[in-house]
Amino acid sequence: MITDEQKKQIELENTKIAENIHPIKHRLVIFSGKGGVGKTTVSVNIAYGLHIQGYKTGILDADVTGPNVPKMIGISGGLHTEDNRIIPQESHGVKVVSMASFLSPDQAVIWRGPMRSKLLNQFLGDVVWGNLDYLIADLPPGTGDEILTMTQKMEPTMAIIVTTPQEVSLIDSARAISMAKQMNIPHIALIENMSGLLCPQCGHRIDLFGSGGGKKQAEAMAIDFLGIIPIDIQARQLADKGKPFILEKATSDISMAIMDIVKRIDAFEN
Amino acid sequence: MITDEQKKQIELENTKIAENIHPIKHRLVIFSGKGGVGKTTVSVNIAYGLHIQGYKTGILDADVTGPNVPKMIGISGGLHTEDNRIIPQESHGVKVVSMASFLSPDQAVIWRGPMRSKLLNQFLGDVVWGNLDYLIADLPPGTGDEILTMTQKMEPTMAIIVTTPQEVSLIDSARAISMAKQMNIPHIALIENMSGLLCPQCGHRIDLFGSGGGKKQAEAMAIDFLGIIPIDIQARQLADKGKPFILEKATSDISMAIMDIVKRIDAFEN
Repeated sequence: MITDEQKKQIELENTKIAENIHPIKHRLVIFSGKGGVGKTTVSVNIAYGLHIQGYKTGILDADVTGPNVPKMIGISGGLHTEDNRIIPQESHGVKVVSMASFLSPDQAVIWRGPMRSKLLNQFLGDVVWGNLDYLIADLPPGTGDEILTMTQKMEPTMAIIVTTPQEVSLIDSARAISMAKQMNIPHIALIENMSGLLCPQCGHRIDLFGSGGGKKQAEAMAIDFLGIIPIDIQARQLADKGKPFILEKATSDISMAIMDIVKRIDAFEN
Repeated sequence: MITDEQKKQIELENTKIAENIHPIKHRLVIFSGKGGVGKTTVSVNIAYGLHIQGYKTGILDADVTGPNVPKMIGISGGLHTEDNRIIPQESHGVKVVSMASFLSPDQAVIWRGPMRSKLLNQFLGDVVWGNLDYLIADLPPGTGDEILTMTQKMEPTMAIIVTTPQEVSLIDSARAISMAKQMNIPHIALIENMSGLLCPQCGHRIDLFGSGGGKKQAEAMAIDFLGIIPIDIQARQLADKGKPFILEKATSDISMAIMDIVKRIDAFEN
C-alpha cells in the first residue's frame, strides 16, 4: 500500500520530470529485445549524426547495470552537481549522463528494479539538460523495469528498435515492437544492424547473421523501417577506443548508412 | 513493510524451493554482463554436452523477457501441469522450462522485477525436475533482479560468465565477475566466446571481436578460465533452426571446444 505522503512525493517527482523533459521537443528511446545487437553503437552514432546536422543533442544512458556509452565516446570520470542538480558530461558537443560515471571499472550494480528506476527518474528530472533539440535514451535489452520507467516518464516521441537479421534477434525485436505499441509510443521504427559482412581480404560475403529480416519484420508489424547498417570491423575497433565512427570515418559505408537514418528520423520528427 | 503473514509465505516458498533444488547436486548459473555474447547458445550446448557425458540435465531459462532457449533447441508449445506442479518439456533427453512456453511468438512480457522473480521462484520450487545431476540456468544479461533472485534462491555451485573478447564486453563481464564474488558463489569461471573468425572462402582471419581478452581477464580477476569457443557461422544457422550444434556437428572445432569445457566443468564439480 502507498501512503498519501508517498503519493504526494511521486506527484512532485513526476511534475519535476515533466518540467525538465517537455522543453526537449524530440525524445527518442532506442531499444532491442535482445542484447548485443549494437544498440549502444547505433544510439551513439545517431546522436552524433544529429549533432552534425546542427541539433543540440544529449544521450541518456538508461542501461543501469551495463552502462557502456561513456566507454564508446571516450569519456571517463564522475558527474558534477550544482545546486543539487546533475551537470551532464560533454564529449565532442554531445551531452551525456550514465551510471558508469558513478562506478569504478569493474564495480557491479546489484540493484533491483525500484532502485534502477529511481536513478532513471533522477536522470530525467535532476539533470541540467539545457535547451536540447534531441534527447536519445539508450535502454538495456529486454522489456523490463528500465523500459517501463523510461516510456512512462520520458514520454518518448519516437521508439527505435535495433535488431540484427538473425532469427533469435527478430523474435525478441517482435516482442519489443509489441511493447512499444502497448505503451502507445507515437512513432515506432526499426533498424537492421550488423547486416552482411565482407571479408576484408577477398571480399567474400560472409553470412554471419543473415540479412533482410528487419525490413520484412517492419512491414509485417506495420512500423517504419529506417534502414540497414552493415557490419564493419573498424567500427568495433573504434568503439573499443572510444571514438564514434561517424566522427572518425565520415565517408565510410557505415557512416553513410547512419546519416541516411538520421535524415529519416529528422524528417519524421519535423 | 512486510506483514507476518507475508513473511510466513516467503519462508514456506523458500523451504519448497530448497527441497526441490537441493537434491540436484550440480547447479550452474550462466550469465554475462553484456547481451549478445552467445550466452544462450553456450548454455544449451553445455547442457547437451553434459547429457552426452551421461548426466541427467535440465535447463532453466531464466531470461523472462527474452526467453530464447526453446527456439534454440527446437521445441514449441506450452508447459503441462500435474497436481499443481509444472512438468518440464523435454528435447533430445534434456528437460527445459521457459517463459517462452507461455507466450505467443511476438508477445512482450512487460513485467517489473517482482513479477519476474515470482516466476523464477516457481521455476525453482514448482517444477518436477526429478533426479537431475545438473541444472543449468541461462540468465539474462546485466546484474539485475533475475540474477539476484537466482543466486539467492538456487544457491548455485558454480557461476560461468560468458564474454566475447571485445573490450566493451570485457568491461561488463568484469562487473558480472564482481557480482558473482559478492554473492559468494563457491566457484566462478569464464568462457571466451566468438573468438576469431575465418573467412570460409579464403581462410583469412577476420578480427571481428578480437581474441585473447577472456583468458587475461580470468587471470587478472583470479577466477578459472574454461576455454575459448571460436565463431562458427554454421552454429548460428543451426541455432536459428533449433538444432544444438553439439548434436548436429559433433566433430567440428566449436563442438570440440564445448566438450573440453564440459569436461573441465565436470572435473571441477566432481
